[in-house]
Amino acid sequence: MNEQTGRRRRAGGRAGHQTRAGHHAIDQMPWRIPVNPDRPTEPLDADGVQAIHRGTMRILSEIGIEFLNPEACDLLRQAGCKVTGTNVRMDEDFVMEMVRRAPGPFTITPRNPDRAVTVGGKHMVFVNVSSPPNAWDMERGKRPGDFATFQEFIKLTQYFNCIHVAGGYPVEPIDIHPSIRHLDCLAEKLIMTDKVVHAYSLGKERVEDVMEMTRLAAGLSHEEFEAEPRMYTNINSVSPLKHDFPMLDGAMRLARRGQPVIVTPFTLAGAMAPVTMSGAVALSLAEALAAVALLQYIKPGCPVGIGTFTSNVDMKSGAPAFGTPEYMRATQMTGQLARYYGLPMRASGVCAANVPDGQAMWETSNSLWSAVSSGANFVYHAAGWLEGGLIASPEKFVMDCEILQMIQRYFEEQTFATTEDDIALDAIREVGSQGHFFGCQHTQERYATAFYQPFASDWRNYEAWMADGGVWTQERAHRLYKAILADFEPPAMDEDNKAALMEFVARRKEEGGAPTDF
Amino acid sequence: MNEQTGRRRRAGGRAGHQTRAGHHAIDQMPWRIPVNPDRPTEPLDADGVQAIHRGTMRILSEIGIEFLNPEACDLLRQAGCKVTGTNVRMDEDFVMEMVRRAPGPFTITPRNPDRAVTVGGKHMVFVNVSSPPNAWDMERGKRPGDFATFQEFIKLTQYFNCIHVAGGYPVEPIDIHPSIRHLDCLAEKLIMTDKVVHAYSLGKERVEDVMEMTRLAAGLSHEEFEAEPRMYTNINSVSPLKHDFPMLDGAMRLARRGQPVIVTPFTLAGAMAPVTMSGAVALSLAEALAAVALLQYIKPGCPVGIGTFTSNVDMKSGAPAFGTPEYMRATQMTGQLARYYGLPMRASGVCAANVPDGQAMWETSNSLWSAVSSGANFVYHAAGWLEGGLIASPEKFVMDCEILQMIQRYFEEQTFATTEDDIALDAIREVGSQGHFFGCQHTQERYATAFYQPFASDWRNYEAWMADGGVWTQERAHRLYKAILADFEPPAMDEDNKAALMEFVARRKEEGGAPTDF
Repeated sequence: MNEQTGRRRRAGGRAGHQTRAGHHAIDQMPWRIPVNPDRPTEPLDADGVQAIHRGTMRILSEIGIEFLNPEACDLLRQAGCKVTGTNVRMDEDFVMEMVRRAPGPFTITPRNPDRAVTVGGKHMVFVNVSSPPNAWDMERGKRPGDFATFQEFIKLTQYFNCIHVAGGYPVEPIDIHPSIRHLDCLAEKLIMTDKVVHAYSLGKERVEDVMEMTRLAAGLSHEEFEAEPRMYTNINSVSPLKHDFPMLDGAMRLARRGQPVIVTPFTLAGAMAPVTMSGAVALSLAEALAAVALLQYIKPGCPVGIGTFTSNVDMKSGAPAFGTPEYMRATQMTGQLARYYGLPMRASGVCAANVPDGQAMWETSNSLWSAVSSGANFVYHAAGWLEGGLIASPEKFVMDCEILQMIQRYFEEQTFATTEDDIALDAIREVGSQGHFFGCQHTQERYATAFYQPFASDWRNYEAWMADGGVWTQERAHRLYKAILADFEPPAMDEDNKAALMEFVARRKEEGGAPTDF
Repeated sequence: MNEQTGRRRRAGGRAGHQTRAGHHAIDQMPWRIPVNPDRPTEPLDADGVQAIHRGTMRILSEIGIEFLNPEACDLLRQAGCKVTGTNVRMDEDFVMEMVRRAPGPFTITPRNPDRAVTVGGKHMVFVNVSSPPNAWDMERGKRPGDFATFQEFIKLTQYFNCIHVAGGYPVEPIDIHPSIRHLDCLAEKLIMTDKVVHAYSLGKERVEDVMEMTRLAAGLSHEEFEAEPRMYTNINSVSPLKHDFPMLDGAMRLARRGQPVIVTPFTLAGAMAPVTMSGAVALSLAEALAAVALLQYIKPGCPVGIGTFTSNVDMKSGAPAFGTPEYMRATQMTGQLARYYGLPMRASGVCAANVPDGQAMWETSNSLWSAVSSGANFVYHAAGWLEGGLIASPEKFVMDCEILQMIQRYFEEQTFATTEDDIALDAIREVGSQGHFFGCQHTQERYATAFYQPFASDWRNYEAWMADGGVWTQERAHRLYKAILADFEPPAMDEDNKAALMEFVARRKEEGGAPTDF
């Protein structure tokens, strides 16, 4: 009921956005969940898929994964796995039985149900940059993250319709004490966005607090909260071959309450993983499936996905590289195996570049288009990431959103439809060899929506562009980011829910927040 | 014989390049012709392919194409086509019979046979930027093309192993009179590169001169020259629905001597073509197949390919847009139809951006990756293009070559191989959960060639990058371009062939070159 009230008070859903477009800093695409119509690119043949699958199963059964969490070890022992200290070996039959319990695609519904996202199948959703410790912009350069900057990125996250999920902290606000950081950050996210939010699995208090805050912000009963996915966590293994205590703890807490868990190993080939890409992928899959098996044992049918973060290091310096050819192939191979296991897949939009320049864009294009060609469902860091994840940049955020919108448009059937109207034989006959198509009826009826309309690209010729100042992309993006902040309107929120949320935050702060001794 | 001598005098082929790499301005990939192992992305189902094919055939049979060349009209009348003035209508049976005569893949062998390129099948070759009237660089800004700048781009074209073909003029040298421009430009290309060259179809004298120069530079007899492809031309139709006199004339001259012709309509949806993408593709295919049919009638089995240059205009300004979602789909659809007709396909690396910034890189990445996903065989403007083809930029050239090298690496099986060595179970077992892979034998044996090594990307962290000046990509590319020019060594050339070439140029200049009244 509160939720319904909340909806009515909002300024309008899809239609509202379109109506208001003229008043906004930019004219952007309406909200939609993109559906990828293409057959994925598959570098592996059936034997290749089996080779990686067998490698993955042998890692799990012969080498085993360290579960640095006694509860997890107890449960897996009870499930029949071979547990030696923290080492857990699982045989293929058990792993595959558990994997088959996973539901495949699932839907997460945030406080505004119009912002629900489906994760899996042909769907593809984009998540803001998450977790950089630093920010960078054209004016202020690189500096540690703070809450004011966090707030800027939350506004960008809410503003862009092509960002579907408010994932991790877009920048780490280190000016807020870690004991209460999650309270301030999630309150800000839950109020200033109406999109799906995420809990870091960094200790039970944080995870429980975020679940409770999400519940309160949506005005849900405990039963309603647990009845379907309302938020999610993403956990990373400690490659090679380890899951740590808080990540497993958070994952188990969410799974028990029916909330989704994405398991994303970070296997840099040549460092925490074999130097060979399929080996790095097999290791990543073993780590991911080990956690999936645990969660499906605890709560059969709980929503899960697996992530890939397999890239390579620069063998000269050891620095991580992103958006490389090897990264692209690893993402595609993981996509093939994710489909083999029937699990939704997470990928990323990443680069090693330090500033939003040409390198940033070719690396990010490589990573985003490989997410497309791999059939990825959930794309982290889709906007705003620089320096291998050490920097969040508002200019990069704006520039990446142009690419994301182009991907959304690329998916639309209009770009490759072949009805009689599309083939346009009559228009071709009418215009003949002497005319042009600008003025013909066929064009006039369609021109307004025929093509992708950019907001950051400048398509004017050089002279017109120079006469207007000759502004390079990064500077245009800087201006757009400022205009968007100036233009920002928070989404509507039910006042009772907001009050309940803030009351909870105040109480938890009074109690001292979360312990910081982890 | 001369050719053999020429080969021996060269500083070395593939091995030579690798040996000399340390002395060069950059450490680049060796010369190779990339082979695309992926199944193309196919937005059209079988019905969609048929819909475009039917549309194409109906344009040809019901509406017809204008052939502004009496000889072509006479020939096509003789072939049984319906010729009314300059309008030629061809029925499907005739067109398909002619298309089936085309040989599919063909190989072009330049004066250095090690630089032969195969066009068609799974092969993909990259061509330098061609035909911009202007140049732009970080130092000098935008200015009309001149011969000194032309020479710089020819050096870049020869220097980069990932540029396989020295296509059209990388910039138009307007300081050379049009009557002799082709003589100076081709002499420069044939001496300073040993790669495949191209003749503009701009009047019979130019075409005949370039064929003769190519023959002389390689020291071939007339019989040897005509026995196999040695150079090529690319012709553009005048969309909608027209082929002009000089383009057809040049194409027919090359076809008769067994030299390849690529037919590339330039159909901007909403301007010279329907606003709907599949309609623009059908029009483009009709124009291309009309010329292919003419050439196969004249010289059955002559090597031909079809190009796509279908993009959209900005419906607000009429300005052409490049690397858009619509452009990508048009390229992929054309790829599907090119395979349906069994013809090699040309695509491009293009952008609307005016400077080598973020927009330039996302648009170029979109166009180059759509060339990959469409299965294109011959990629024009693969390095150096800006402002919708009005500018050639050396910085952009260098930046694009980084993307081209990444595409080449992406094609290599090493990035997705799944042998037992690749899955690396023993290495994973050896390293276990406590170690790292840097030091293990499996890594040590492979690290030197395991990953793509960039030359323009900077993978250092922000602090190291800043300590070294904080140089953005375009500025790094500027420095690289200067270093490459400083480092440039011309390829070896047989002195007799060079003398014969220069003698021909001198004689033709004395004769006044080509008429300029076209």
